[in-house]
Amino acid sequence: MANITKKVSWSSRADESAAAGEATPLLNGSEQPQHSRQLSGGGSIFQIGRLSTVDLEEEITSEEDSLRGRPKEIPHNEKLLSLKYESLDYDNIENQLFLEEERRMSYMGFRCLEISRWVVCGLIGFLTGLIACFIDIVVEQLAGIKYQVVKENIEKFTEAGGLSISLILWAVLNFTFVMVGAIIVAFFEPIAAGSGIPQIKCYLNGVKIPRVVRLKTLVIKVCGVICSVVGGLAVGKEGPMIHSGAVVAAGVSQGRSTSLKRDFKIFEYFRRDTEKRDFVSAGAAAGVSAAFGAPVGGVLFSLEEGASFWNQMLTWRIFFASMISTFTLNFFLSIYHANPGDLSNPGLINFGRFEGDSVTYNLYEIPLFIAMGAIGGLLGALFNVLNYWLTIFRIRYVHRPCLQVMEAMLVAAVTATVSFTMIYFSNDCQPLGPESTEEYPLQLFCADGEYNSMATAFFNTPERSVRSLFHNQPGTYNPLTLGLFTLTYFFLACWTYGLAVSAGVFIPSLLIGAAWGRLCGILLASITSTSSVGAQHSSTIWADPGKYALIGAAAQLGGIVRMTLSLTVIMVEATGNVTYGLPIMLVLMTAKIVGDYFEEGLYDIHIKLQSVPFLHWEAPATSHWLTAREVMSSPVTCLNRIEKVGTIVDILSNTSTNHNGFPVVVQVPGSDEPAKLCGLILRSQLIVLLKHKVFVELARSRLTRRKLQLKDFRDAYPRFPPIQSIHVSQDERECMMDLTEFMNPTPYTVPQETSLPRVFKLFRALGLRHLVVVDDENRVVGLVTRKDLARYHLGKHGLEELQLAQT
Amino acid sequence: MANITKKVSWSSRADESAAAGEATPLLNGSEQPQHSRQLSGGGSIFQIGRLSTVDLEEEITSEEDSLRGRPKEIPHNEKLLSLKYESLDYDNIENQLFLEEERRMSYMGFRCLEISRWVVCGLIGFLTGLIACFIDIVVEQLAGIKYQVVKENIEKFTEAGGLSISLILWAVLNFTFVMVGAIIVAFFEPIAAGSGIPQIKCYLNGVKIPRVVRLKTLVIKVCGVICSVVGGLAVGKEGPMIHSGAVVAAGVSQGRSTSLKRDFKIFEYFRRDTEKRDFVSAGAAAGVSAAFGAPVGGVLFSLEEGASFWNQMLTWRIFFASMISTFTLNFFLSIYHANPGDLSNPGLINFGRFEGDSVTYNLYEIPLFIAMGAIGGLLGALFNVLNYWLTIFRIRYVHRPCLQVMEAMLVAAVTATVSFTMIYFSNDCQPLGPESTEEYPLQLFCADGEYNSMATAFFNTPERSVRSLFHNQPGTYNPLTLGLFTLTYFFLACWTYGLAVSAGVFIPSLLIGAAWGRLCGILLASITSTSSVGAQHSSTIWADPGKYALIGAAAQLGGIVRMTLSLTVIMVEATGNVTYGLPIMLVLMTAKIVGDYFEEGLYDIHIKLQSVPFLHWEAPATSHWLTAREVMSSPVTCLNRIEKVGTIVDILSNTSTNHNGFPVVVQVPGSDEPAKLCGLILRSQLIVLLKHKVFVELARSRLTRRKLQLKDFRDAYPRFPPIQSIHVSQDERECMMDLTEFMNPTPYTVPQETSLPRVFKLFRALGLRHLVVVDDENRVVGLVTRKDLARYHLGKHGLEELQLAQT
Repeated sequence: MANITKKVSWSSRADESAAAGEATPLLNGSEQPQHSRQLSGGGSIFQIGRLSTVDLEEEITSEEDSLRGRPKEIPHNEKLLSLKYESLDYDNIENQLFLEEERRMSYMGFRCLEISRWVVCGLIGFLTGLIACFIDIVVEQLAGIKYQVVKENIEKFTEAGGLSISLILWAVLNFTFVMVGAIIVAFFEPIAAGSGIPQIKCYLNGVKIPRVVRLKTLVIKVCGVICSVVGGLAVGKEGPMIHSGAVVAAGVSQGRSTSLKRDFKIFEYFRRDTEKRDFVSAGAAAGVSAAFGAPVGGVLFSLEEGASFWNQMLTWRIFFASMISTFTLNFFLSIYHANPGDLSNPGLINFGRFEGDSVTYNLYEIPLFIAMGAIGGLLGALFNVLNYWLTIFRIRYVHRPCLQVMEAMLVAAVTATVSFTMIYFSNDCQPLGPESTEEYPLQLFCADGEYNSMATAFFNTPERSVRSLFHNQPGTYNPLTLGLFTLTYFFLACWTYGLAVSAGVFIPSLLIGAAWGRLCGILLASITSTSSVGAQHSSTIWADPGKYALIGAAAQLGGIVRMTLSLTVIMVEATGNVTYGLPIMLVLMTAKIVGDYFEEGLYDIHIKLQSVPFLHWEAPATSHWLTAREVMSSPVTCLNRIEKVGTIVDILSNTSTNHNGFPVVVQVPGSDEPAKLCGLILRSQLIVLLKHKVFVELARSRLTRRKLQLKDFRDAYPRFPPIQSIHVSQDERECMMDLTEFMNPTPYTVPQETSLPRVFKLFRALGLRHLVVVDDENRVVGLVTRKDLARYHLGKHGLEELQLAQT
Repeated sequence: MANITKKVSWSSRADESAAAGEATPLLNGSEQPQHSRQLSGGGSIFQIGRLSTVDLEEEITSEEDSLRGRPKEIPHNEKLLSLKYESLDYDNIENQLFLEEERRMSYMGFRCLEISRWVVCGLIGFLTGLIACFIDIVVEQLAGIKYQVVKENIEKFTEAGGLSISLILWAVLNFTFVMVGAIIVAFFEPIAAGSGIPQIKCYLNGVKIPRVVRLKTLVIKVCGVICSVVGGLAVGKEGPMIHSGAVVAAGVSQGRSTSLKRDFKIFEYFRRDTEKRDFVSAGAAAGVSAAFGAPVGGVLFSLEEGASFWNQMLTWRIFFASMISTFTLNFFLSIYHANPGDLSNPGLINFGRFEGDSVTYNLYEIPLFIAMGAIGGLLGALFNVLNYWLTIFRIRYVHRPCLQVMEAMLVAAVTATVSFTMIYFSNDCQPLGPESTEEYPLQLFCADGEYNSMATAFFNTPERSVRSLFHNQPGTYNPLTLGLFTLTYFFLACWTYGLAVSAGVFIPSLLIGAAWGRLCGILLASITSTSSVGAQHSSTIWADPGKYALIGAAAQLGGIVRMTLSLTVIMVEATGNVTYGLPIMLVLMTAKIVGDYFEEGLYDIHIKLQSVPFLHWEAPATSHWLTAREVMSSPVTCLNRIEKVGTIVDILSNTSTNHNGFPVVVQVPGSDEPAKLCGLILRSQLIVLLKHKVFVELARSRLTRRKLQLKDFRDAYPRFPPIQSIHVSQDERECMMDLTEFMNPTPYTVPQETSLPRVFKLFRALGLRHLVVVDDENRVVGLVTRKDLARYHLGKHGLEELQLAQT
């Protein structure tokens, strides 16, 4: 595949396109600039995980296997934007059909729609909660079995001295689970790898990631996450919940499953990008809510990542879905724990209650917290840099599914070995008191009534380890143990993220942070207790290392993912204590500032490495000197309002340019004046029109076909057939097609002088896919798409421009 | 003043304006439609509170007293929209000056700006917290003094039998406080009346309410709220905090005080509507945060009410301001309570901690909660209807300041009398245990070691009463006492809201709700305990009436104010317990649905009665059949790019039409083609241009004046002088003015066929003030302003159209 790059030369390009705009009134070119761009020599085809196996070609050739011979090393250049990602359209296509339907609808009709939106959100919340519940219970059962088996084995061999057999048993168990998890992900649905948060971020941002919200993805994701958590990898099951929620939402809201070939004939009104995306926001929020017991955090996550336009009712519905989700999880878990009605487990993880005197902090602790935030930012940046290199390595060398499975198994084996070694050599024995919260204590070489705390840390689910680090009595952990644990887990977690397994990075981050945070707390306590000044007073303040564990966890997580408001709220909700709001916020802020100095957030790195045209909240600060004229793609392929079928088919079939939106122009009959813009039509609409053969014969007598309805477009949504699958005979090619009824007659337009930030704001606030640039005679001179805007970003040396690549 | 109404006739108007658009290329009309509208006979001049004394005339004649003779009865028609409210412009005026400045600015410059935004937000939070702290402490001190005085007096007369003297003493004390509070509000700053939430809602919505964010308003508001709370009225001090925060924000962010005539020469970049409104959002959030200890709730409040466009960094800053605000309040209160470092008082009110077993609820309680929500909705609607009638009455008859003061004093007297009577006749004695939380117990006729609970309810600050209702042991309250208290307080609170005193309605609502909620709890407990089936089990569940008090409080408050997401989060944060999230949400939802069936929310009623052109989130559902052509005002007053000064002065001086935005058109020289749109200029900009005499002499030689800079516009912001104050000589009238540099060259435009929802979305998402409607030749055919959109609303009989009124 050839690779298109764009030569930058502001003044000349501006002149060119201005000239083009004046000289060629009816433009016939491409949405993505071609003529004014140079073809560069190959090389920049790249591949991430196996996400990019799902590209345009596959869309076209449908189910064809794309795993044929690839180069062994895939060179990668991150200064590229991929053209293969299409945008979602958050702007309603207000064509005549749509307006007619809306006008026909009564007020009661709108009320019913509103009610069904609420029902859908309730369902989304309920199903997401159920899935979370299912994952939790299965993981707990399997982990319990694994623990029993290994424990019995270890107890058998501790005295006899054959502990290496236990190691092998443990490793084999982990191995098997991870292998299953990696195989289903790598071979059946590569998009289910990782936490899914970057993908959902992209989706909510308005980028269509192929196959991301399919039922198959959900099934693989759920099984995959169970396998990888039980397999003892340094992963969490929380991130995948967000993806799961989104898939549930996309499925439920459409009232049908394309995978299962079932159409329930309900919610047909919701079969368009605008509505679907709203529901996916709700699903993502429900996922966060189920994962962390943080309904408000979920709402804020969705808004932070997605909402083009904040709408009160929508937010309220999203909140409803979140609430139902956390409530469902809570309720079913309470039944599972044989304590129905006890609604104290609102999420997959909760940090336990921070109550009483131990939680107060003082003003002079705040600088300490900020310092910890800085450490978190540094460690987070280190994590991200390492993971970035690793990802580049993976893109280049580990792109075959079998290699990916092997890597996952290697990581599983290494994790098991390292853990075992550390347990073996640690002699940190802790008394097994009656108030001990450990569910999987391992005695090992400890005296009776004691347990090995390192073993516990590794055997516990990471969630429980986090809680122990937050709440265990001072003195439970040996500083050396904590230090070693932090170090090991840091590298393991870093290696693990990006493997072809479904798993999240939240919990490992929290765990690393909690470990070094607690370490800080212990060190502070020992420093202050040895100093003689005011020892009695200060020791009570510093006495609780759990507080520092919490701050450390926040700092580390913030340093890695760089989320802001939503993460603060999630942390506050998970601790159930508003008092910690300010310190957590300060810590997250510091971590973000420090971390951003070195490297972007983990999710942003992965989005960037996948060359997704992601739009941030605002245009780059120093981009006021760019105008629509420089940004837009031109010339533009325009269609006439009444266009020849053959022309349309040819334009759509042109695989070198993958255009999705076409301005429709009208020529004043009998005049040689240039054509004016009169509408905008999408590829998907044209395809449906061609499929239903809505042609006007040359003699202008309409064929006796039934009138095309919105339903036809909705039925085809979202998997519109490729143009190649539509057969148009030679006779039909000579027919005409009247686009008047189907085009959007009032597309948003801007003049050529509009500054980039202004274009950007319009684009972002309205969730546009295409923005037509017109001259002062209302003639089309260019088209701005998501990729044209995403190409500009602030680099180290000021404004940089990314290149566009076909893959 | 004449009153303009609009005759509706869709088809004919559409034809008219379409014809006008084609026939008169260079339009010379008005922003508000005139020609096509009929003048109706007077009558609809109206007056709310004294808010509307600040109208255009006063802006023009500056400090002239507007208290001259008014008709005694002011007829009122709520189906009007006032033309006197101007809009804020959330859309940056990207003229050449602005773009030049932005282009000159380096990346570091933008970073510094960003940092100063954070500093400003920190300051806003800090000062808002301080103000909250000040109000709290002063109220507590004054209330303490009042309590001491009255208590001693009562104790003196309880035995002797002259309790009427105590009543008089009490009444006189309350009287005095309320009188002071009412006088300063009614005579000095009427805008400071009430909670200020409707005004801030309007401001955040984009309507400029005159004088709402001035320093004087803040001072009067703070003093007023202290007086009315200490005066024993059924009011809270929480609502006014939101207004106070907003004023602080508007002041701090501008780096100067126009009232104090001090300009600190800082933050000059922020002197425009866009930036100011962002900061006011932060201020309002900080206010909510300080009032309820709910930083997240504050952010959501701001977003729910204001955010045109959700921006991640902005939200994060708003959250920062909220956090700082609650932290400041907490910190200073902890010092005041001689317990520094105890950060457990995050807000002016907190509901106390709901912890332990008493807080669990069960699935079968949820229908009960929903029923309570319905009751809350009904009672709230009743409250709103009563208050609506009362407000109409006040508008008609109680519009003089002296009458307003007298009404306030009457209410104070009645409140005192009713309270005293109820205390006198109540014999609900409760033991004064060691764990009793009452700070002001009154023994009255009770035995030693007991206190009169009715007296306590009336003597306590409402905040403390709410907390007692939530947390006191079962059996603390007599059902009869609660019932009587609910009834009395309901009517008192209803009468009080809308008085010319600064006070909020949150706390009274919570108190009413908590009272009847607790009553429900007590009744449920007595029903279930007398029934024999499973008595032991159910009694423990039903035993805690505090839970029902909380639900009742939420229901009542939700029924009155109808806030959704933000109120849920505020309640959850104030209880400090996420577990109650779902029930509170369900209750608020039910209350809103039931309440909306009868009457709008209290704030919306007051906004409507003030005829504010308020834009809701979405266009009315059934408005798809309206297009920009029908909605827009036309013909439009356009200016030429190089326009004669005299023409401009004449257009601006035309008081019958108060236009604020003028499309700028350009005629192709030497051609008779119609003029094309080339920009948009605001009245305020023209005024600054005239003031600085930026004229081009007829000979086209530029006057030797310094070049006008953005600074000149910023210095004049936001109180631009009226056109009358600018002297333009006859010679100067003949000069020309070149608008090219100052106009916004890329105003947003829509074609005439654009549907209303689409126009609405564009308007709302971008926070526009003017939207130019063009034909397909890019000629101006109309202008859509906020009032044109706000005129359409969904009434009982489908889509209704409001009339426009000059006052």
